[in-house]
Amino acid sequence: MCELLGMNCNVPTDICFSFTGFQARGGATNVHRDGWGIAFFEGRGVRVFLDPKPSCESQVAELVRRYPIRSLNVIAHIRKATHGTVSLENTHPFMRELWGRYWIFAHNGHLDGYAPALDGSFLPVGQTDSELVFCHLLQTLRLSFPAGAPEGHSLRWALEEFAAQVRPYGLFNFLLSNGDGMFAHRSTELHYIVRQSPFAVAHLKDQDVTVDFNEVTSPGDRVVLIATLPLTDNEIWTPLPVNSVAMFTEGAARS
Amino acid sequence: MCELLGMNCNVPTDICFSFTGFQARGGATNVHRDGWGIAFFEGRGVRVFLDPKPSCESQVAELVRRYPIRSLNVIAHIRKATHGTVSLENTHPFMRELWGRYWIFAHNGHLDGYAPALDGSFLPVGQTDSELVFCHLLQTLRLSFPAGAPEGHSLRWALEEFAAQVRPYGLFNFLLSNGDGMFAHRSTELHYIVRQSPFAVAHLKDQDVTVDFNEVTSPGDRVVLIATLPLTDNEIWTPLPVNSVAMFTEGAARS
Repeated sequence: MCELLGMNCNVPTDICFSFTGFQARGGATNVHRDGWGIAFFEGRGVRVFLDPKPSCESQVAELVRRYPIRSLNVIAHIRKATHGTVSLENTHPFMRELWGRYWIFAHNGHLDGYAPALDGSFLPVGQTDSELVFCHLLQTLRLSFPAGAPEGHSLRWALEEFAAQVRPYGLFNFLLSNGDGMFAHRSTELHYIVRQSPFAVAHLKDQDVTVDFNEVTSPGDRVVLIATLPLTDNEIWTPLPVNSVAMFTEGAARS
Repeated sequence: MCELLGMNCNVPTDICFSFTGFQARGGATNVHRDGWGIAFFEGRGVRVFLDPKPSCESQVAELVRRYPIRSLNVIAHIRKATHGTVSLENTHPFMRELWGRYWIFAHNGHLDGYAPALDGSFLPVGQTDSELVFCHLLQTLRLSFPAGAPEGHSLRWALEEFAAQVRPYGLFNFLLSNGDGMFAHRSTELHYIVRQSPFAVAHLKDQDVTVDFNEVTSPGDRVVLIATLPLTDNEIWTPLPVNSVAMFTEGAARS
């Protein structure tokens, strides 16, 4: 099993505070020692930092923790290997291009006996069930919308339908983004919080670090954080509904 | 115009020394201030570091310069924008997946009036002529080899044919790798050097830095470096033949 972290905002925001707590779970306060990765959308572009080393010991993770990259959509993952060896090609998040946009995907769970027929348009490079299901997901979207990218709600419905077909094979907690919004599907554990005015003080669960969001935000800012388990111990995180795809845009949940 | 740097080796090698000289050209000793990027293959996986900031001022470039990532195939690029704005999505190198392998591409030059018909299998995310030609290249390869990945020499011939069709549109210096080998096409400027036993001392052109390769290599090591302009001032770099695709595997040129 692994841990997921996602962020969706209405203004470009850095994730340094949340990543500080998340990074500690990669081998220091939790068992996810088999690599980590994080993807930041900036406009249509995306920066992906990957490391097959534990995040608590990674120089690249140190850079990410200290260097504020401002983004509207971020997906991070720390891995405890179940399917596939510990190697760079098996490190989440995964990236592909569809309809002239980059898509980023990270998965927590495992799928057993899942062997979809792939037509070659998206093929896995590594050996994980996660990259396989991501390739199948993009192939399915491409075939479902031959005229090109659908708008957000149609996309969400297509993801609901896809997730329902995958669920019989196992656990399928995932985060997906194309830079416009964030989609989250919960099988077992996935929580979220919306931070907006009036802002408060937050304290990390995994490290003794506190931030006063009043000092680092403007009144109109709105940020959604999504994590496998709550990252702070003095805020209320809401579990996402089970077996359902949630959509977040501009720092808010969309129904 | 931009500058290219490539490395192909027979044992995983770090590029810290060469990158130190290359990084300086991104705004310090040369005019390429419009972003930079570097991709390292590690097994089938690849790590891409991108930054739309000048490499001489980039914290990410500092990490790459100091943190030895050992790789068999590396492609780096520093940009002076001609087509497309200065933004992350226009920053080289570009990555796509084909036949279950990642492909990395960087281009120096400009193509005018180049408007290939794309079938949607690979679409550009940004606005550069470089990403457009990369998408068209992968589409062409995919259609030329419907049974899947060809071996190196067939691939080289397909690249020769493709490059010949593109050359009338402008300058097409490029580096391409799928992790197995490195392909280089020269229109105007592209030089290479093979470093192997007996190793010597090399001194950078762009910074007063010297390395004695005897101290950091084993006798069987073999490394090809490819760069727009020679990176050292006390070694002999060979210009690649014009209008031809060179192939390098395991640290040697293949005819």
